[in-house]
Amino acid sequence: MSSKKTGLWMIGACGGVGTTATLGLAALARGLTSGTSLVTELDLFAPLGLIEPGQFVVGGHEIRASRFRQTAQEMHERAGVFSRNVLVGTDDLLASWEENIRPGTVIGSGPAIERLAETGAVRTAATGREAVEFIKADLLEFKKKHDLDEIVFIHVASTEPPIPLEAEHEDDAKFAKALEKSAVGPTTIPSSTLYATAAIELGCPYVNFTPSLGASIPVLERLAKAKGVPLAGKDGKTGETLMKTVLAPMFSRRNWKILSWVGHNIFGNRDGVVLDDPRHKASKVGTKDQVVSGIVGYKPQTLVSIEYIQSLDDWKTAWDHIHFEGFLGTKMILQFIWQGCDSLLAAPLVIDLARLILDAKGRGQSGIQSQFASFFKHPEGSKEHDFFRQWNILEEHVAELTAQSGAGK
Amino acid sequence: MSSKKTGLWMIGACGGVGTTATLGLAALARGLTSGTSLVTELDLFAPLGLIEPGQFVVGGHEIRASRFRQTAQEMHERAGVFSRNVLVGTDDLLASWEENIRPGTVIGSGPAIERLAETGAVRTAATGREAVEFIKADLLEFKKKHDLDEIVFIHVASTEPPIPLEAEHEDDAKFAKALEKSAVGPTTIPSSTLYATAAIELGCPYVNFTPSLGASIPVLERLAKAKGVPLAGKDGKTGETLMKTVLAPMFSRRNWKILSWVGHNIFGNRDGVVLDDPRHKASKVGTKDQVVSGIVGYKPQTLVSIEYIQSLDDWKTAWDHIHFEGFLGTKMILQFIWQGCDSLLAAPLVIDLARLILDAKGRGQSGIQSQFASFFKHPEGSKEHDFFRQWNILEEHVAELTAQSGAGK
Amino acid sequence: MSSKKTGLWMIGACGGVGTTATLGLAALARGLTSGTSLVTELDLFAPLGLIEPGQFVVGGHEIRASRFRQTAQEMHERAGVFSRNVLVGTDDLLASWEENIRPGTVIGSGPAIERLAETGAVRTAATGREAVEFIKADLLEFKKKHDLDEIVFIHVASTEPPIPLEAEHEDDAKFAKALEKSAVGPTTIPSSTLYATAAIELGCPYVNFTPSLGASIPVLERLAKAKGVPLAGKDGKTGETLMKTVLAPMFSRRNWKILSWVGHNIFGNRDGVVLDDPRHKASKVGTKDQVVSGIVGYKPQTLVSIEYIQSLDDWKTAWDHIHFEGFLGTKMILQFIWQGCDSLLAAPLVIDLARLILDAKGRGQSGIQSQFASFFKHPEGSKEHDFFRQWNILEEHVAELTAQSGAGK
Amino acid sequence: MSSKKTGLWMIGACGGVGTTATLGLAALARGLTSGTSLVTELDLFAPLGLIEPGQFVVGGHEIRASRFRQTAQEMHERAGVFSRNVLVGTDDLLASWEENIRPGTVIGSGPAIERLAETGAVRTAATGREAVEFIKADLLEFKKKHDLDEIVFIHVASTEPPIPLEAEHEDDAKFAKALEKSAVGPTTIPSSTLYATAAIELGCPYVNFTPSLGASIPVLERLAKAKGVPLAGKDGKTGETLMKTVLAPMFSRRNWKILSWVGHNIFGNRDGVVLDDPRHKASKVGTKDQVVSGIVGYKPQTLVSIEYIQSLDDWKTAWDHIHFEGFLGTKMILQFIWQGCDSLLAAPLVIDLARLILDAKGRGQSGIQSQFASFFKHPEGSKEHDFFRQWNILEEHVAELTAQSGAGK
Repeated sequence: MSSKKTGLWMIGACGGVGTTATLGLAALARGLTSGTSLVTELDLFAPLGLIEPGQFVVGGHEIRASRFRQTAQEMHERAGVFSRNVLVGTDDLLASWEENIRPGTVIGSGPAIERLAETGAVRTAATGREAVEFIKADLLEFKKKHDLDEIVFIHVASTEPPIPLEAEHEDDAKFAKALEKSAVGPTTIPSSTLYATAAIELGCPYVNFTPSLGASIPVLERLAKAKGVPLAGKDGKTGETLMKTVLAPMFSRRNWKILSWVGHNIFGNRDGVVLDDPRHKASKVGTKDQVVSGIVGYKPQTLVSIEYIQSLDDWKTAWDHIHFEGFLGTKMILQFIWQGCDSLLAAPLVIDLARLILDAKGRGQSGIQSQFASFFKHPEGSKEHDFFRQWNILEEHVAELTAQSGAGK
Repeated sequence: MSSKKTGLWMIGACGGVGTTATLGLAALARGLTSGTSLVTELDLFAPLGLIEPGQFVVGGHEIRASRFRQTAQEMHERAGVFSRNVLVGTDDLLASWEENIRPGTVIGSGPAIERLAETGAVRTAATGREAVEFIKADLLEFKKKHDLDEIVFIHVASTEPPIPLEAEHEDDAKFAKALEKSAVGPTTIPSSTLYATAAIELGCPYVNFTPSLGASIPVLERLAKAKGVPLAGKDGKTGETLMKTVLAPMFSRRNWKILSWVGHNIFGNRDGVVLDDPRHKASKVGTKDQVVSGIVGYKPQTLVSIEYIQSLDDWKTAWDHIHFEGFLGTKMILQFIWQGCDSLLAAPLVIDLARLILDAKGRGQSGIQSQFASFFKHPEGSKEHDFFRQWNILEEHVAELTAQSGAGK
Repeated sequence: MSSKKTGLWMIGACGGVGTTATLGLAALARGLTSGTSLVTELDLFAPLGLIEPGQFVVGGHEIRASRFRQTAQEMHERAGVFSRNVLVGTDDLLASWEENIRPGTVIGSGPAIERLAETGAVRTAATGREAVEFIKADLLEFKKKHDLDEIVFIHVASTEPPIPLEAEHEDDAKFAKALEKSAVGPTTIPSSTLYATAAIELGCPYVNFTPSLGASIPVLERLAKAKGVPLAGKDGKTGETLMKTVLAPMFSRRNWKILSWVGHNIFGNRDGVVLDDPRHKASKVGTKDQVVSGIVGYKPQTLVSIEYIQSLDDWKTAWDHIHFEGFLGTKMILQFIWQGCDSLLAAPLVIDLARLILDAKGRGQSGIQSQFASFFKHPEGSKEHDFFRQWNILEEHVAELTAQSGAGK
Repeated sequence: MSSKKTGLWMIGACGGVGTTATLGLAALARGLTSGTSLVTELDLFAPLGLIEPGQFVVGGHEIRASRFRQTAQEMHERAGVFSRNVLVGTDDLLASWEENIRPGTVIGSGPAIERLAETGAVRTAATGREAVEFIKADLLEFKKKHDLDEIVFIHVASTEPPIPLEAEHEDDAKFAKALEKSAVGPTTIPSSTLYATAAIELGCPYVNFTPSLGASIPVLERLAKAKGVPLAGKDGKTGETLMKTVLAPMFSRRNWKILSWVGHNIFGNRDGVVLDDPRHKASKVGTKDQVVSGIVGYKPQTLVSIEYIQSLDDWKTAWDHIHFEGFLGTKMILQFIWQGCDSLLAAPLVIDLARLILDAKGRGQSGIQSQFASFFKHPEGSKEHDFFRQWNILEEHVAELTAQSGAGK
């Protein structure tokens, strides 16, 4: 385990997830909270010798004026999360990390994200390539200033509209050319992909925690392999979808036939504002609606809705109604109601993935790391949605690493 | 796969579970229903060449006057289960199997079961041994009459009060002596154990689908080994407890801390009448309440209630409220509501276990078959409650058998 | 109380609601069921001397080939409703009433209803007036054939798309002219209004149990007054909306502030197929979404969704999530889950309204009968949505009638 | 409206309900919160000219060492209630009111309350009469110190075990004699009744917000009449029971037949600790379990459970499952889940009742005030449980008062 400092660079750093991850790292560094809900604190991972939460320095890009402490305070007041003890005890650390925030880009981020962007908090660029370059410059400055041995790059910004795969995503030259085009008007290379390009070109391990395009194009997957950059994604599996990937295997193994699976999600945070725009929502519904049929092997009627209900703030509430056929054609019903705090569910997984993908980099792995499938709604490099099969894969992976390295790296 | 007939002998044969299993076997034999909800119809088990449902002949012991067709008709009218098509199309087969029902014993079954027993439907015996002998005589008559190559013995009677382990359960001689005592008054050898004794002495594979004592005593476990009899139990995992063993692993792997898990169960069938007596309920609550802490490795506050609500009939409804702590001490809630038809959930597992334990016998296995843990609330021979780890064990077991035998037996 | 026969004429007679009302009347006539869920069987109404269920003869218009017995059988098999006893014991009566069904019109009914219409089951007409005339001819034939003293006319057909009020709805001459226009292409006078016109012109008391336009236009309201025809509507208040009008008054009287009220409805019957078309759904969501703010006097965020989930058939399931603010700004939550059988909830109200509006006619009342507001999602002639205030109005109305007439009419 | 100060004296003052009422009055006095959830802030009550929240001075008896600010801080940390703004902005007022707290008595309060009592916080007395006298002395000191024109007395202490009516509750002389007996050992005059005696002897209007015996004995009811003291009780109707009295009328008016009503309540505050003792719980289940049959006029199967689940703290969660029969014998289901904060639901009603019973005293009313039935689970002087009929009674009462007095007192 290195004693040097490591950078955690987040896109959308001062949103709910980024702020909670940051606050959590600070609280862990100060011994103000436990490792509860950090997957990487399970005994399973102990032999890996992962980087300690206290070794991280946080920075990132943001397109709003709000910074960690303001967002945290707002969440505390509106959603009733974070104890005063933690807020007060991490204030100075958060203040110092706020200095590492740089204005981001909204090229191709879609209308709802553009509406969120605040004057002075966004950096314009004439072309995609220009944006990539200033992102890289920001990262290099961060690395130098804090004398970091490594930076892990995690995308936690709001969801962009879906973008179909085009020729420029497949072909290196066309991609390079597309980056040189004017950034005004529609584009097939949204900001999530510009950020991913910058990260990979600099050799930073990259995690896409959102359904946005990010690094999920052949050009960048090849580049990651070439640069020795491990990738993981996409769309963190936090609440209702996690439940689906836990329950669908039960139906499957008991040979019950799912007739219909209806899932209604309501929540009221900033992510909800963005998803309330149907162009953005399409990306999220897409990753949420595939998992059941992916597990049971047939297509029951499914319905996924995500609605913005302001009063709920960060408390994402889901009602799922599962209608299934048992023996002798008997119809039965399972319903669940999930009341989870969105950012608090996501943030520990962000920390987990930062630790794990840094470990992967340290072991010389590159390209898509499919062993992390259990963390994602849309696991890249894997068709496996069954949470417990995904877990078996992770467990076996860790066992292999442990066996290879004896008592750790 | 043998083309001979095989006997399925159930204790409590004409109750809800026994009747549904019987009706299901008849409907499968006649091609009137699909294999939905039969675990053994999953592709995984195809290489084993299990006995076909159509090869079974059904018989059993019963302490009430009701027979399959009457029970099925009552369930159809009260609980709205079973299509007319199935009822009509299996009527003659059920009628013929009703002739295989023999009066049972209620020695040591507890007060609520004694209240259920009907005059003329119960056979008295001066001692436990006398009961064991008439049970064996009934089985031998059944075997001879139908020219059966094998009889599988499944206990599906109502739950007896719990009985602590005593010296006579451990020591062969003391057990033999206890069987010779007068059957009047309290006993440590309840009818479930008398039935199990008869089954094992005759070499019949034995499954205890209830929380009653049955074969779960050292004397009988040894005898089963000696006689080449495979055993499996106990207490079929059908609804709310299955859910617990599916969900608790999620909390565990995500490192969330379960603060409390409350489960309220309401239902109104005959089993509910028996469980409404606190002496009987103790057995059921016991097997239901151990699973969560068995999986997560610590003891959250848990509460399990089972209440008899007549209007629900066979529709067992459970509300579970799970309070858990996530990141930074944030409390979140998962609730589920399960509305399942009790007998329809249990019956296919009875058929599955009959097929699987016959297969085990055919492969020369004896004693407790711990690989069937996923079917039970209180898996004998295993401390594993995690449904997916239980499934892995079963999957690996089947894979081994398949590997050993090539394309089956 | 008259001993003569009275006609109940329904539009959409052989759909779920019409069939259930018909089966119910037959079962009541034969003494095969109780008055449970008939509001008019409460003691309150006894002094009115309402027409007995057994005095009704049923007929109606229909646009599909299915008839009462076929629909009832399908509902029995798919949704598990109606006992065999009732189906068998009313078979001959339903058969005789099936002869009173006539092909209906779909002029202006909207695309989803046109898709439901079956060849040979629909009667075409060159103009709206032509349709009105054949409807009247059908009614007169029905009256004559069965020697009826009165016919009550109830609209229970699927929901038409909403139609804004136009000049031809306000002005008699323009209305008459519009009826003479070609029936091909878009129209402002949909079939529900054509039926209403026919009913009112013949002096039949009229109830609109749906959100369709029906008689809700000034021209017809005036005509009803002139002809001595009582009207009631619209959109029967059966399940989730009834709950809203019961619960919102609680929040109001306890001075809790409703922050948001989310209601998700799923169901799978024919009405659901029609409502799955957004043009038709608009009418239903409109009547469902106004009630909460109408009661509490301010506008909380509300969301109503209605989705077609085939496997549920007639079992309409609603999840409502009500977020409210209590003392010292504390947010609290009430959720309810309603699992009701749509047609079985609606049909008794159809019978109640038939009895009550016939009583109104007998007492010489005409025009909109606002005292029946408690039966409707969108009560005509009343702005009162609070179920208990609506009930007080009904109670006082009955008390007045009783006082006027001594022991009844 | 008087400009003088009025005392609010609570028994169990520094528990959850007492503290919240106190904090609420302070926050209202300081303009730090709105009147949301105060029934008496509805327009209906404006003409009465009730005492303003800012006119109250708070005092009371308590048997634990904790005081308002400590309890409030604990609730803030454990249950996430009360904003910092309110806590900080009322700190000095609460500090001054803490000086008005006096040690209480636990004579006959039952084992669970005795376990709560802390050394130094309880005042012993040789006889009941001695306790009554020190209570009166405390009240008189409070009145004098703050120059109060009136003191309203509200019982909000934890629930005592039920006590059957005996001769000494009926007969004045026997009651006087019983008060002189030694306070050691079992008694038929529990502390709630000693407090009530003191209040009534001093002429203070009295409200029993709990199921304990309090003033509910003929001797005290007569004394209240004689002394001009209005009484109200008992057991505040806050959450699940309120819901029952709102929903049962719907079932009744729609003539649906309730088959069973199951209500499971879980919560984890101090009241829950006391109710976890079956002797205390009996009182609460008693008042909760009578309301449904009291409204519908027949006795469906009902089940009420209240369980202590520590992690929930003040968040009382109830799951109610209502099984009912609709038309043609069809069984349907309504379930609700109530997640309310117990103290925050109760406290505003305490303030409402304080204002209303002071108003009653001002108008010369004495004895049981049955017009306040809508506030209570077990309304004294009324058999009416239907919330909306109770509300009609209150509304008519206020209308009469308003009519009598013109624009107020």
